[in-house]
Amino acid sequence: MTIAVTAAPPISSFAQTLSEPAGFGDQSLITSRPDAIRLLGGIPAPQALPLPDIARVSAELWTDRTAATAALQYSSSTGLSGLREWIARREGVDPARIVITNGGLHGLSLAVLTVVERGSSVAVDDPIFPLFLRVLELADGSVRPIPVDPEGLDVAALADRLAGGERISALYTVPDFHNPSQGTLTAQRRRALVELAGQYGFWLVIDNPYRELRFAGQDQGLSAFHGSDRTIVVNTFTKTLGPGWRVGWLVLPESLVDPVVRLRNRLDGHTSTVTQALVEHLLLTDPAWFDTVLAPARRLYRDRAIALADALAVEAPGAFRITRPEGGLFLWPRLTDDRVDAGALAARAADAGVLYQQGAFFSSGADTWESSRHLRLAYGDRTPAELREAARRLAAAL
Amino acid sequence: MTIAVTAAPPISSFAQTLSEPAGFGDQSLITSRPDAIRLLGGIPAPQALPLPDIARVSAELWTDRTAATAALQYSSSTGLSGLREWIARREGVDPARIVITNGGLHGLSLAVLTVVERGSSVAVDDPIFPLFLRVLELADGSVRPIPVDPEGLDVAALADRLAGGERISALYTVPDFHNPSQGTLTAQRRRALVELAGQYGFWLVIDNPYRELRFAGQDQGLSAFHGSDRTIVVNTFTKTLGPGWRVGWLVLPESLVDPVVRLRNRLDGHTSTVTQALVEHLLLTDPAWFDTVLAPARRLYRDRAIALADALAVEAPGAFRITRPEGGLFLWPRLTDDRVDAGALAARAADAGVLYQQGAFFSSGADTWESSRHLRLAYGDRTPAELREAARRLAAAL
Repeated sequence: MTIAVTAAPPISSFAQTLSEPAGFGDQSLITSRPDAIRLLGGIPAPQALPLPDIARVSAELWTDRTAATAALQYSSSTGLSGLREWIARREGVDPARIVITNGGLHGLSLAVLTVVERGSSVAVDDPIFPLFLRVLELADGSVRPIPVDPEGLDVAALADRLAGGERISALYTVPDFHNPSQGTLTAQRRRALVELAGQYGFWLVIDNPYRELRFAGQDQGLSAFHGSDRTIVVNTFTKTLGPGWRVGWLVLPESLVDPVVRLRNRLDGHTSTVTQALVEHLLLTDPAWFDTVLAPARRLYRDRAIALADALAVEAPGAFRITRPEGGLFLWPRLTDDRVDAGALAARAADAGVLYQQGAFFSSGADTWESSRHLRLAYGDRTPAELREAARRLAAAL
Repeated sequence: MTIAVTAAPPISSFAQTLSEPAGFGDQSLITSRPDAIRLLGGIPAPQALPLPDIARVSAELWTDRTAATAALQYSSSTGLSGLREWIARREGVDPARIVITNGGLHGLSLAVLTVVERGSSVAVDDPIFPLFLRVLELADGSVRPIPVDPEGLDVAALADRLAGGERISALYTVPDFHNPSQGTLTAQRRRALVELAGQYGFWLVIDNPYRELRFAGQDQGLSAFHGSDRTIVVNTFTKTLGPGWRVGWLVLPESLVDPVVRLRNRLDGHTSTVTQALVEHLLLTDPAWFDTVLAPARRLYRDRAIALADALAVEAPGAFRITRPEGGLFLWPRLTDDRVDAGALAARAADAGVLYQQGAFFSSGADTWESSRHLRLAYGDRTPAELREAARRLAAAL
């Protein structure tokens, strides 16, 4: 046999447009002390996940021959019907609009591939959940950053740019407990956003993984989004039942169900029947079950959020502008002294034994200054004692 | 609030290129008697799936707090290390070349998106597993059908076309127990195929879901593929542990691991940690376990293959040219009488209470005649008694 003589053929142009990870999520940036306190990711607390119930439901499933056999077989691209119906009831929509996904990121990629024309402009949060920018590379989308303030995306700023002639194929935002900047989009802004989407003909991609984790303030509702024929709502059980399931969902306008299913039929067929069956059993055995899991989880995250916010104020008085979160898993304190070198601070903090994501990683625009004045501190999977120690270490680094 | 006045914006051109399902898999073609015997899909027998072991391993996982907590959290894009190492040992490659997928179809879509340049030509089996043609729409690939005979893909025919000036970015084939046509690619053809890929600079996408289900004949080996730097081997636990897991894997050349991981980071992050942890526990508890599951499964499929092939020969003597399968889940009998209307036969068979996939659905070329003379009969999930009854009904329909 002749030895192959040509170089390996090239990968596709599509694959070549996907960038190397840098900044957010690049663990090589961090030199970690063994005892470092990690405030890095939006990770749910292990204590908040319903292990005993999972063990019980799992035992029930695998010892019921009919149910177990069904769980091991192929299932529908849209998802198990009982699971879709449960989600539809909670969302307040028709079950036909629900498509089960392999988690939130998968929902975002399905949304982007379905509605973002290749190379088109997409308006996004600034600061932003950085992984969405990577997902957007799937459509080689051009980013149009829109500022986010304590009331969420600045919809008036978007309206001005649209009125000025800018055109976009889609807009991306996190409405509840914004990642990274904590704020919640007001009901009024939600309505205005839907109105703009109608007026200018673009899609809304609404990413809402933290929605169920409200522990203060007022819910701003989803009816504006669910009443819109151009809004995709992306959600997941990641922050409530655990990231490891990889079970999430889309709430789609009716017109997008078939296109998303066609895409699904080519990408992966359907979400694991096993994980769907287990989550379905968890949710359906007792209608009140999910809320009985969430109630203590919300208290736990509230206690952690307060512990961190208050400890920072005590340990580093005046150093940060701090807003107590109303939900979610992140604190986004702003440095009050513009002379502090944020990169050097992160390095000193790592040396002092506390790791976090630098605000600059979350900028979606050319001007990273405002984002760089912030720190994203993820408190979900750290105890109050660890969070107080983290605040002491951060104060020492300052 | 003003009511939205524009029509919903268009979906992406990418999404528009994905066709509506037709032919294979379109259940609306079938008017089904309630007692119809379904020989439609490559579905493993429920009796061949290791339910008691799954129940045991599942109970162990969910009552081990450390393991359970890990299973509920995020994990690596490449997959759990113990699972990758087990697969790498069985494949005979370095674990660094294994990426865990959400099943075989997902592996195919990752391969296509990574190596098929948009709009380029791809050589494929004729007849073909029809879902690959749908996956190929993700890259808007142009299909170049290559005949498949009882020794698998006709590599000499491919060589002739390449020598004549045709150029392709990739080739797709199912080497072991071809779907639908039963044959196995010979070791000699495997080597020749790898040589052509080297000589002409294209990628091989080798789809091998039935590989572990050999019950007769000689294994033709994978070393030619695994020794090639331009071959992607796609496999899955679907046919051995069940489709519902949605756990499969890619064996990649080293140069493709990073591109596939980058794509994965944008599409869905990683395969469910829960399903991976359960499959990993199943495989690692006892090194001999997988083979103890496969041995009775292979006997069961052998018995079913023989029952169906022999019953057809007895019930409809001379009507089909039949080859006993050496493995896999399909019989691909050819009608001996060219005057039989294959579409009318399928309709009469459905009326008589037996459902199968028409051979014409599996053609990848413009000329569907040869494929249309065949029936694809899937015997995996039917008992020998059902298969004998199916043969009687098919004979009656003839």
